[in-house]
Amino acid sequence: MNRIQKLQTIMDVEQLIISDAAMLYYYTGHRFDVGERMIALLVKKTGAPTLFLNKLFEAPDDLQTVQFSDSEDSIAILGSHLEPGTLAIDGNWPARFVIPFIPTHTLVNASPLLEQIRTLKDAHELALLETASQHNDRIMSEMHDLIKVGMTERELAEIVRTKQSTAPLQGPSFEPIVIFTQNIADPHGVPTDRVLENGDVVLVDMGGFYEGYASDMTRCFFVGSNKELEPIYEIVRRANEAAIAAVKPGVTLASIDKAARDVITEAGYGEYFIHRTGHGIGTEAHENLDVSETNQKIVEVGMCFSIEPGIYIPGIGGIRIEDLVHVTIDGVHVMNQFSKELTRI
Amino acid sequence: MNRIQKLQTIMDVEQLIISDAAMLYYYTGHRFDVGERMIALLVKKTGAPTLFLNKLFEAPDDLQTVQFSDSEDSIAILGSHLEPGTLAIDGNWPARFVIPFIPTHTLVNASPLLEQIRTLKDAHELALLETASQHNDRIMSEMHDLIKVGMTERELAEIVRTKQSTAPLQGPSFEPIVIFTQNIADPHGVPTDRVLENGDVVLVDMGGFYEGYASDMTRCFFVGSNKELEPIYEIVRRANEAAIAAVKPGVTLASIDKAARDVITEAGYGEYFIHRTGHGIGTEAHENLDVSETNQKIVEVGMCFSIEPGIYIPGIGGIRIEDLVHVTIDGVHVMNQFSKELTRI
Repeated sequence: MNRIQKLQTIMDVEQLIISDAAMLYYYTGHRFDVGERMIALLVKKTGAPTLFLNKLFEAPDDLQTVQFSDSEDSIAILGSHLEPGTLAIDGNWPARFVIPFIPTHTLVNASPLLEQIRTLKDAHELALLETASQHNDRIMSEMHDLIKVGMTERELAEIVRTKQSTAPLQGPSFEPIVIFTQNIADPHGVPTDRVLENGDVVLVDMGGFYEGYASDMTRCFFVGSNKELEPIYEIVRRANEAAIAAVKPGVTLASIDKAARDVITEAGYGEYFIHRTGHGIGTEAHENLDVSETNQKIVEVGMCFSIEPGIYIPGIGGIRIEDLVHVTIDGVHVMNQFSKELTRI
Repeated sequence: MNRIQKLQTIMDVEQLIISDAAMLYYYTGHRFDVGERMIALLVKKTGAPTLFLNKLFEAPDDLQTVQFSDSEDSIAILGSHLEPGTLAIDGNWPARFVIPFIPTHTLVNASPLLEQIRTLKDAHELALLETASQHNDRIMSEMHDLIKVGMTERELAEIVRTKQSTAPLQGPSFEPIVIFTQNIADPHGVPTDRVLENGDVVLVDMGGFYEGYASDMTRCFFVGSNKELEPIYEIVRRANEAAIAAVKPGVTLASIDKAARDVITEAGYGEYFIHRTGHGIGTEAHENLDVSETNQKIVEVGMCFSIEPGIYIPGIGGIRIEDLVHVTIDGVHVMNQFSKELTRI
């Protein structure tokens, strides 16, 4: 049974549109980059799906396709293939495509259905994710060996980008983050021209694509000694390990978040752990699976997600330690092998 | 009058939401990257706008802001600030944010209004676009000097990326395209590991950001001699020049497309010019202004767009020559100075 057929077995609507590039890749095996133009895969409860694609782009051989030119009304062409009633649409479909269907259809969000299939990885996908993470481990080790006092955040981030773009990898799975000490206090910090000095902490948060599957890992290295952040490092490491130990089928995602959060709260830093513990990963670096305080969703075999607790102290700095895991029948498999021992450069 | 105030003077609705990152940057001067989280700037017909922003991100000092956490219902919070009736929404707002407002509001696409202000550049913006293009000219010249037989498309594209990421530039404005001969036949071709050989044509299509404004230019270089594509080059160059000569206030965008298309059609290659002649540019490399066969919109002073005719012959290869122009009171100013004479490497 292919992925479209799996989707059809759980579809609680008669017709559904997939438009997001990562979802299209997941469900069809084809990558489309149509920019601002319309693209839609129409899936009905039975039968083969139909792709609606601008003539500028080549139609794949294995999909029934309706093509249109820039001068045609793509929305009207798609509309003429729809049944009246309810239409489930990709949660990422831009409003300009959605608005024309409001008068004629009852619109519902298809993304929870689309995610339900995509969240549970099969053996082939797990193998690709594992290999992607092995490459990420290798690049982390190479970064560890080349980071030197005097280099800038931006320079190091560019090196990561190049390594993640070198075969067999196809490019970074998100903009590489290499930031130092105080800049780490912002969990969304971006690389600047700040120069690495003795006493700094270097955070490297990076990932790449291997055959369409993403990696994502964070490590922090100490340059010489930093008495403020070294104890923080050990707390975050314990939080990371506690969350990993809590992963198994049948528990809630919230309980995994709690395992990390409890360690940090008991150490007195609860207010500085200001984000969720993790996110899903697969054909995108961020898939819609929140390891968060409020997510009561049940953990199932085949889910893949990050475990990345952190402590962020404004003006001082921060620490985050991130691994990818997947859920096995009897617990958890950690996909990153790079050491989490406190490491000096 | 700031940009929000300009927008308010032409607003034909009482309330409007801006959510697209490039539009938010244009209207507020702030860049936000909130990933999958909700962000919305609510603009009413009068008064200051309100930004709805997740607490994970720092609120700018100069905007009235409502913040919410991951565990709060951001849609409901935004909804409580809306008037009943019509709501204009950003055409790029993802469907998952749009669907909840369908039962309570009449939704219309705000993007034509948002674009109407953004399309007409002021003097400060023109100066930034000009400087961005001067850097693109410089990088094109550097690329010309370093392209050598034996290098791969991907390798050259990576060099472009690095150059576009080096101060004072902030990074590429789109994925750099460096492709050879047959690969050029696909107008959306992407760099591969193909090695440059004697007799090849090298297409370089690239741009970068300078203080938030984009450049975009394409040139084709000959490596030795290529008897098939040399005559094609001259046709495309004449098409590029004819389109540029047709630019002035008061004509239609379609008439500019026609000027390029007529040259190519008369030369017998009409069927191989398979895309529009150009697109708008500004804070994004592709802004919504089509220089196309069907766009009857009237050209106005301050518009900026690309002129990029091309000929694409499957199995053989292709040529595209692209410049940026802006519309002046008495005609046109070309922002790229890099030579369009047939050039050998």
